[in-house]
Amino acid sequence: MRIGIVGGGQLGRMLALAGTPLGMRFVVADEHADAPASSVAEVVCGDPSDPATLARLAARVDVVTFENEHIDSGALADLPVPVRPSPGALGIVQDRLTQKQMFMRLGIRTAPFAAVSTAGELPDALAVTGAAAVIKTRRGGYDGRGQAVIERASDAAAAWDAVGRRPAIVESRVRFRRELSVVAVRGEDGRIEIYDPAENRHENGILRVSVAPAPIDERTRAEAAAAVRAIGEHLGCIGAFALEMFDTPAGLVANELALRVHNTGHWTIEGAETSQFENHLRAVAGLPLGSAASLGHRAIVNLIGDLPDPAEVLALPSVRLHVYGKTVRPGRKVGHVSVGAADPAGLAERLASLRHLPGAS
Amino acid sequence: MRIGIVGGGQLGRMLALAGTPLGMRFVVADEHADAPASSVAEVVCGDPSDPATLARLAARVDVVTFENEHIDSGALADLPVPVRPSPGALGIVQDRLTQKQMFMRLGIRTAPFAAVSTAGELPDALAVTGAAAVIKTRRGGYDGRGQAVIERASDAAAAWDAVGRRPAIVESRVRFRRELSVVAVRGEDGRIEIYDPAENRHENGILRVSVAPAPIDERTRAEAAAAVRAIGEHLGCIGAFALEMFDTPAGLVANELALRVHNTGHWTIEGAETSQFENHLRAVAGLPLGSAASLGHRAIVNLIGDLPDPAEVLALPSVRLHVYGKTVRPGRKVGHVSVGAADPAGLAERLASLRHLPGAS
Repeated sequence: MRIGIVGGGQLGRMLALAGTPLGMRFVVADEHADAPASSVAEVVCGDPSDPATLARLAARVDVVTFENEHIDSGALADLPVPVRPSPGALGIVQDRLTQKQMFMRLGIRTAPFAAVSTAGELPDALAVTGAAAVIKTRRGGYDGRGQAVIERASDAAAAWDAVGRRPAIVESRVRFRRELSVVAVRGEDGRIEIYDPAENRHENGILRVSVAPAPIDERTRAEAAAAVRAIGEHLGCIGAFALEMFDTPAGLVANELALRVHNTGHWTIEGAETSQFENHLRAVAGLPLGSAASLGHRAIVNLIGDLPDPAEVLALPSVRLHVYGKTVRPGRKVGHVSVGAADPAGLAERLASLRHLPGAS
Repeated sequence: MRIGIVGGGQLGRMLALAGTPLGMRFVVADEHADAPASSVAEVVCGDPSDPATLARLAARVDVVTFENEHIDSGALADLPVPVRPSPGALGIVQDRLTQKQMFMRLGIRTAPFAAVSTAGELPDALAVTGAAAVIKTRRGGYDGRGQAVIERASDAAAAWDAVGRRPAIVESRVRFRRELSVVAVRGEDGRIEIYDPAENRHENGILRVSVAPAPIDERTRAEAAAAVRAIGEHLGCIGAFALEMFDTPAGLVANELALRVHNTGHWTIEGAETSQFENHLRAVAGLPLGSAASLGHRAIVNLIGDLPDPAEVLALPSVRLHVYGKTVRPGRKVGHVSVGAADPAGLAERLASLRHLPGAS
């Protein structure tokens, strides 16, 4: 089966690495002929936001999926091959407003929010959220981009400018004990495999560390799983998706949803019986899903803006290196290191030993 | 680092899949532009037995390795980049006679044997080996090819014809309890990582099933490890190698050595902390080796001459599918299925459930 992926970044690369053993062939649509996935997939070189690029991709494959959500879901819907997850689901998720509305409709706790289209709407929005808020563009943000913090009402105008005066939502800032995420994959047959929640730490808006399974109680686990299951079924999602949540004294608060394989699920490559990448592809190809059960305890550290000497990384015990084949630039995710241990204390120790590596601190 | 591989078959493909996350780029030399490795590596298309093909490969990479031993070791030695394992080691191993002589020199038990270059030498050879013997060409055989069984002295002439009247060895047939193999990898720094021995079953001269760890006692394990260590050090091998042995009432008997990643080590992809493929590449690239420790119990079944429906395979628990991207032909290895379990009994049961699959029986 030929799988088309919109985007040839590290997620496309890890998808192709996971699917090649299953006999799948990969074609990615990317602006850059030397995109990270190019060493393991053919490249249709072009702007993925151009419907003509998507049409060229679709002409070469049996099914199309995507590694980021910044795509015109209408153009996807016009393609002559199946698109998984569906363009309809993508349309809901790629707009923070409809995403939040979905959380509310499904009874999933989320921070108070209000939509704003003009600067004049900011005061009414802050009346809903309170003055300690975040403004986020409805579309196109990632890794902290398209977001600005509001500390007090007088910050609002500057925050509105900072996000480009584009349609946005304002939401209350949430005080949390920890950040969690849950990756799940829903198959063509409706079966959902839910990975253990990961605990995540962000630095400057970019994920730095994920640890799985997160140290949470059974009630919290069940609450997270129920939210993810409701979302997967509501969207009729075929493929992987990831829900980021805040763990608060009042319970879990849904932060945002990604309709794709997710950085906080990279631990599943070594840490789960079937990785998020393989399970996403099984779903997209209409194959049965594999077990999402964890194998011991696992963490990943993102390598950002620098790469360590591989010899230094690989000398450490129970470590796996993932380099994405990208040019190193400040603030850019260029790889990750995965580390495993039999118990949380051992994992914490090994994780600490990685943090001195160039790119990991 | 750019790694050149002589041969672009399934071993080259699995090497490239293992090394891409380490940031390595792969170029394979193969007669076929659509060789199995071609979806994950560039292809230098040409006959690998032609020194010009090897030179074109070497011109594009930092280091050269190989996925089979049917190469002119002299031509390898002339390349302007490092070749790992060394052409000298390959020269010893690719000739069954010098390989057997090495076993003897290292005190590793092996079946009585004699070299034959002409039909006239057969009676003297059988006087050494006894009438129940096997004739094997000194070079170029694999998967049972280049071999013929001798039941009685009167078979010898026909066996000599069957192997093409080429320089050969005659060796005694060994009665064994089980076939074992040990894969090991020796690093640039001399460290050797030894995987758990696997128990293997061949059908029609082709590997069908490997199960690891093999159910052997500690003494046998130690004997196998000592043999492998002595060989790795004697050859100064940098990279993976595999020793096939017979487990007999008199102890282990070395059968044959392969100087490369090995079919009986495919279980290490899921079943060991670091796979034979990653460790081979770490060695070739001068990087520290990873642990060869087993993760539970694992088996593989080769898919020969047919491929099952992936949906049927992937519906089974704890199973991973590896398809090699080859045209299906009778008697051809086109993939393998890996299956894991927590204990030998559970593994045997899961393994049995695979044997009805097309290609697996």
